[in-house]
Amino acid sequence: MDTAVPGTVIPVDERWIDATYRVRSAVGDIDARAKALALEQSVEAPLAAVDDPRVLAEVVARVDDIVPATPGEFEVRIRIAVETTGFEAGQLLNMLFGNSSLHDDVALLDVRIPASVAARFGGPRFGVPGIRALTDVHGRPLTASALKPQGLAPAQLASIARTLARAGIDVVKDDHGLADQEAAPFAARVRAVQRAVDEANGETGHRCVYAPSLTGHFGQLRERVAVAREAGVRMILVAPMVSGVGSLAALAREGGLPILAHPALAGAARIAPPLILGKLFRLFGADATIFPNAGGRFAYSAETCAAIVDAACAPWHGLAPTLPVPAGGMTVARVAGMRERYGDDAMLLIGGSLLAAREQLFDRAREFVAAVQGSGA
Amino acid sequence: MDTAVPGTVIPVDERWIDATYRVRSAVGDIDARAKALALEQSVEAPLAAVDDPRVLAEVVARVDDIVPATPGEFEVRIRIAVETTGFEAGQLLNMLFGNSSLHDDVALLDVRIPASVAARFGGPRFGVPGIRALTDVHGRPLTASALKPQGLAPAQLASIARTLARAGIDVVKDDHGLADQEAAPFAARVRAVQRAVDEANGETGHRCVYAPSLTGHFGQLRERVAVAREAGVRMILVAPMVSGVGSLAALAREGGLPILAHPALAGAARIAPPLILGKLFRLFGADATIFPNAGGRFAYSAETCAAIVDAACAPWHGLAPTLPVPAGGMTVARVAGMRERYGDDAMLLIGGSLLAAREQLFDRAREFVAAVQGSGA
Repeated sequence: MDTAVPGTVIPVDERWIDATYRVRSAVGDIDARAKALALEQSVEAPLAAVDDPRVLAEVVARVDDIVPATPGEFEVRIRIAVETTGFEAGQLLNMLFGNSSLHDDVALLDVRIPASVAARFGGPRFGVPGIRALTDVHGRPLTASALKPQGLAPAQLASIARTLARAGIDVVKDDHGLADQEAAPFAARVRAVQRAVDEANGETGHRCVYAPSLTGHFGQLRERVAVAREAGVRMILVAPMVSGVGSLAALAREGGLPILAHPALAGAARIAPPLILGKLFRLFGADATIFPNAGGRFAYSAETCAAIVDAACAPWHGLAPTLPVPAGGMTVARVAGMRERYGDDAMLLIGGSLLAAREQLFDRAREFVAAVQGSGA
Repeated sequence: MDTAVPGTVIPVDERWIDATYRVRSAVGDIDARAKALALEQSVEAPLAAVDDPRVLAEVVARVDDIVPATPGEFEVRIRIAVETTGFEAGQLLNMLFGNSSLHDDVALLDVRIPASVAARFGGPRFGVPGIRALTDVHGRPLTASALKPQGLAPAQLASIARTLARAGIDVVKDDHGLADQEAAPFAARVRAVQRAVDEANGETGHRCVYAPSLTGHFGQLRERVAVAREAGVRMILVAPMVSGVGSLAALAREGGLPILAHPALAGAARIAPPLILGKLFRLFGADATIFPNAGGRFAYSAETCAAIVDAACAPWHGLAPTLPVPAGGMTVARVAGMRERYGDDAMLLIGGSLLAAREQLFDRAREFVAAVQGSGA
């Protein structure tokens, strides 16, 4: 089809997505296993069931390379036709790992996305520069904290937000467990918290941003964005693996607000964290991406964290960089180490350990802010 | 709150969801690990950060039981407050496994859902009885096949559908890889295929049903349901883990069509298949659920398949049963074995191996139909 008109031939590298999998297999079986993987992730049928010459030439995925990794494991590279994605985020994920997620001998490691596909999705609409402009923070990492525990009423959450904003925190986000529960319904909570942050900003002259947690299917997300915008909200938090990556891509396209992506449920499917939290969330439009920092509550290694940052920020098809947000059991004492590891282009997120200070929340938050600004409290 | 008004006390079993996890841990660490799991899946903060008495009493999750399983592994039961779910499907999944999916020492095994929560979600709106009424198939399993490979044009897919319908197949579903690609855009494909099936039904007097694959975020799903209904479609296929379980629940609430759930991206290792493909998809409204049959292309055991069927069909809070759809590398030769395993209340799905018959597709499909109807071809 594409090749029918001379002069409009699409370069071969733009027509295929290269996906790399780690496959557990005996040496004698790996060729057949790799071929089965290619069929599973494209036509989902035996080759004998495919007789259309165009489908055979342009749609069936191909085994591109097989490289021994650890003993009993191989890295298998499969070429998947771009046209099978229909340029939908969920469908791209489906073609990369939909059925194969049900096979426990295979994990999805990485993917090469053609430039034209990247351009079609568009990536972060704000990214690092947009979030810096919004918060007016330059030359240092941003600071962030979380509103929790869920179960508190809107006024209680607003009170915590006011304290954090007055202490100079740059971004106050909802705990991702905050949805639309009876204890703090979405609209009431968002209005109360945004008002508190606005009041604090009026006192301090800072530009603290509140990012409420949006949950539900896209119809609900869209309604909640409208409620949030009306309340003056300037950033939103979503968990793309819960709400669907299609919702992330649509929010990026039409939401008009920077998107902070939460990793909830991203670990359930054996997809390498740098790929899903870094590369794919960025492709679909996350402006900042939260991930578990090494040495915290989650067993992500320093190498994994570095790879997430690389996937989020390295030059890539002209897409804006996604701001890395290391989190998960961080403390003020760890700020120096995080600055060393992540440099300036990061948002450091400390939640529970600030809140554990209770009556000293303001002071603890000030310590956090001062540590990141590189001066004493 | 609930307990404030005498006479309206909600029974304790209706206020907590019991989730069971398998946790890898040394004996000496399991108590602390279980407590951390309970915090992670509720307030996501150290207890020291929680001072509100209501939150401590009614919102923080509790360790209910710890039982040794295999050496080095424990089954841990956690009580999660119903109110934290906000009665949203995605948020329920988030509270069950959002952050813990990022911990590789824990898997989600099972969950006890209170009757009032089940009633709130509503489960399958059609279920087994509704699908039987729609197709007029009684006293035997239903037969199903799939339209593939993707890459074919609408007319080619319609031709395959016509052949399958004329052969007496009960349900013809899109391959889940069919989305809205250029080769067969959704609207054109659905109209062509539904027309072909309608024509075949006119000839045979049967009631073959076509289930197109709906992809995208909920806004797109809703638009595509409208297109499909206008074309005369009477069943739809969705992959809830790709599109988001919130989309499944919303389609069940407002779609008005039986929903066939596809397991893409549901993973094999971290959420027990009977829980996600059986119990949770049923809770959220799937009328039929496709799962990999033992002995096919996927390594699901016979026990796992039996547990999926049990979760989908056993009496449960008055919810309609979800029709089990074993699939994945099935052949006509295996029909007898599948009938023995699943009895009558199932839909047997054979895709690729019928299509591999190419010019003999009609004859092979007739053999399938005859085998299920229990007579010779």
